[in-house]
Amino acid sequence: MTSTPAYDLLADAHLRLHRFGHLASITRWDQETYMPPKGIEARSAALAELAALMHRMRTEPGLGERLERAAQEPLDPLQRANLREMRREWQQDNALPEALVEARSLASSRCEHAWRAQRQAGDWAGFVDSFRDVLRIAREEAELLSQLDGVSKYEALMDRFEPGMTCAEVDRVFGDLKQWLPGLIRQVGERQAGEVVIEPVGPFAISRQVALCDRVTRLLGFDFEGGRLDVSTHPFSGGVPEDVRLTTRYNDREFQQSLMGAMHETGHGRYEQNRPRELLGQPVSEARSMAIHESQSLSFEMQLGRSRGFVGLLAPMLVEQFGAQPAFQADNLYRLFTRVRPGLIRVDADEVTYPAHVILRYEIERALIEGDIEPEDIPALWDEKMMALLGLDTRGNLRDGPMQDVHWPAGMFGYFPCYSLGAMYAAQWFAAMRGATPDLDRRIAQGDLATVFDWLRENVWLQASRWTTEELAVRASGERLNPAHFRAHLERRYLA
Amino acid sequence: MTSTPAYDLLADAHLRLHRFGHLASITRWDQETYMPPKGIEARSAALAELAALMHRMRTEPGLGERLERAAQEPLDPLQRANLREMRREWQQDNALPEALVEARSLASSRCEHAWRAQRQAGDWAGFVDSFRDVLRIAREEAELLSQLDGVSKYEALMDRFEPGMTCAEVDRVFGDLKQWLPGLIRQVGERQAGEVVIEPVGPFAISRQVALCDRVTRLLGFDFEGGRLDVSTHPFSGGVPEDVRLTTRYNDREFQQSLMGAMHETGHGRYEQNRPRELLGQPVSEARSMAIHESQSLSFEMQLGRSRGFVGLLAPMLVEQFGAQPAFQADNLYRLFTRVRPGLIRVDADEVTYPAHVILRYEIERALIEGDIEPEDIPALWDEKMMALLGLDTRGNLRDGPMQDVHWPAGMFGYFPCYSLGAMYAAQWFAAMRGATPDLDRRIAQGDLATVFDWLRENVWLQASRWTTEELAVRASGERLNPAHFRAHLERRYLA
Repeated sequence: MTSTPAYDLLADAHLRLHRFGHLASITRWDQETYMPPKGIEARSAALAELAALMHRMRTEPGLGERLERAAQEPLDPLQRANLREMRREWQQDNALPEALVEARSLASSRCEHAWRAQRQAGDWAGFVDSFRDVLRIAREEAELLSQLDGVSKYEALMDRFEPGMTCAEVDRVFGDLKQWLPGLIRQVGERQAGEVVIEPVGPFAISRQVALCDRVTRLLGFDFEGGRLDVSTHPFSGGVPEDVRLTTRYNDREFQQSLMGAMHETGHGRYEQNRPRELLGQPVSEARSMAIHESQSLSFEMQLGRSRGFVGLLAPMLVEQFGAQPAFQADNLYRLFTRVRPGLIRVDADEVTYPAHVILRYEIERALIEGDIEPEDIPALWDEKMMALLGLDTRGNLRDGPMQDVHWPAGMFGYFPCYSLGAMYAAQWFAAMRGATPDLDRRIAQGDLATVFDWLRENVWLQASRWTTEELAVRASGERLNPAHFRAHLERRYLA
Repeated sequence: MTSTPAYDLLADAHLRLHRFGHLASITRWDQETYMPPKGIEARSAALAELAALMHRMRTEPGLGERLERAAQEPLDPLQRANLREMRREWQQDNALPEALVEARSLASSRCEHAWRAQRQAGDWAGFVDSFRDVLRIAREEAELLSQLDGVSKYEALMDRFEPGMTCAEVDRVFGDLKQWLPGLIRQVGERQAGEVVIEPVGPFAISRQVALCDRVTRLLGFDFEGGRLDVSTHPFSGGVPEDVRLTTRYNDREFQQSLMGAMHETGHGRYEQNRPRELLGQPVSEARSMAIHESQSLSFEMQLGRSRGFVGLLAPMLVEQFGAQPAFQADNLYRLFTRVRPGLIRVDADEVTYPAHVILRYEIERALIEGDIEPEDIPALWDEKMMALLGLDTRGNLRDGPMQDVHWPAGMFGYFPCYSLGAMYAAQWFAAMRGATPDLDRRIAQGDLATVFDWLRENVWLQASRWTTEELAVRASGERLNPAHFRAHLERRYLA
């Protein structure tokens, strides 16, 4: 009598999880885009029920033994990589009791929903009230996960998004940034002070912005037969690889926010749409990590999207939608899109000041999770760091301060560093592309974007989780994460 | 040692099922409204996985014994009604093996999706191809269910939508209809031949139709804080009681289709939105049956919506959206909305010819399920019956013939009779309302719709599944289903 190989049983179980994840993902997208307000309680309960079910599946008693048996079976390298990822997920999931998982889903679902209204109203006290639950659960989770891995509590949470990343490494990279970034911001500021930039004159009809985003998203290769672009308070990319749901947000006073939001999410979306199809449902087919994911959104929004060549492609599209105006001349548009201005809102920040927003959040959320501070301490810290890093006075403006991001209400502690790690990886990818294709910028300017897409598809998208992040970086670019590429990119674009 | 009452365990299990049902319902709505084409395979797989899970929950081995134990526990009348409904569901679900349930979900999901394109193309051969699977599975299901209840195969399927309904009863009622309906259609036709009806002059901008539907849906009391109105190929009402999703469809050549679709679905939607809140998740809180559900949509669309008084309320709203034109005078509008014209499309049919569409489908689908005919036989039968019942030549037009409805591709055999049973119940409800409130029509004309809503809420919505359909009818109107009210309504509206 032969029995089914343990590996096959594990693969089947992951396929089932993938299908349940599909339902969670689409209903979460709906929650952010179309769900009416009274739907929230029932939706939270339904998602929590599903989260508990999936957690039970992931922590089924026989799984540990099955993983061990599978390790003894003859597997090809890809299956072995899949098994490694299965084991990693299993370890994380088995550190958490079901009640905690359910409570986490419920609390974050509720807090995230409440946050939408509270942010509008600048209701910090109300927010702290619903946020306390989210934080308490995150601390419990961090405690349990850190015991498992022998890492700090914050590292344990960060590991969910960026496997293997340590605070020492983040401190090293961010410490380096803090050395040269303030000087660079100052230098760029002085240089741009002398530049004349013509401001676009609005209003910009939202229907035209929708058409523009659609057009640009298509140019960037997003497949609308397998995805959508909608509207939400905070732009995000969700859904499933076969049906990717992007969102952006519109206001008719300016078009940059919706356009750049759409370009950013398109980077996430193409990564998801191009994950290896034959492995969908298996952990090895998942995106490698969130820093790598952000390296894709930033490759699209920053590296490609704000390059002089690409801005030349955008200019006529703006004219097409909004009519001709002096601001839409390509050189002026390029100056507009590369203008550096310390500001309050992270998602609206330019790529030079952006890391300052991330460093601030990293420092605050790490202290929150380690229990060094409480939610009440956030506003004063926020004000102090915004002044120190960007020279901005944020006192009293909670709405555009610590309430601006979905991450904390959603319980996504440990995510923020990925944005700046992603920016560095993106710079590294483009340095590698230019190494292989010296006329890359000429090609982009001519609208030939295939070189960029092919490189990303080959080196990142199709690799999925086959390798560790470091191996992926070395295979793609010949070296592990090297922040020098990011610095060189900024100096080249903003000071050359 | 005391153990948890069996009833409580059953109630908990049903609450979990309700939550999983939430996810299925929202993602099915998404599938019909916003999902891009490439999403279908993954969506079908995900929904089938969930259907299988829910089926396993409903057929868990200990449930039969638990139901028996609960019957011995001290329960209040409402709990006892809940237990009766639990047992009914349990019996139906346990008649079907899991593989069949999964195959059914997969086949209908695929066929329904394919149907959308096939209908557009009039591709009958392609449709028959994907429909064959749906039919084969429905026949298997009918066979298994009929063995359980000792009823015919078609009755077994009908019982899913209208518990306790028999073919003998449908034949009796439809037989009666067939006696007087052709004569009535003829009489109305002769009478209306002499009427002058001014046709509205289009086009009717879709944005204006959307605004009109929104306005009228609000007037009809639909709560947009707990629901939405979107667009789909075939109008439907879905979602969950806390978040009801209605759809309608628009074309700019006329406004009646979108308006009447919205009014119809609002009736379904209000029933769902007003199911007793404290019992949500329990079978006894579910809508009583699909005939009763259709009695609500038809109360809104036909009884109330096309009454002279209500048309008087609609007239200024049309002027507001589309500008004044002679057709929008209330008397003309009433003639327009009560015009009887035999036509090809069921959902566009007036209330006089509508039963003919239902009788035709009932006769064909009953023969299909009993195995007396095959899909290839449908077109000829369709042509023959459309000629006999409505005097229309439908040869060669499959698109507007047997391909027009979602029910067959979705495997919903046994549903169609509910529409006409619902029309009869709706007439019965309004007869009872007029009995209690003789000036009902004057109130409606003055825009005081509370009498109608309160009666329906009290007698139908809040009763949910507490009583059998027959008990519900007797409690609400003093008698069981009496088709004489429907005939009286038609004669009063169309021949008086």
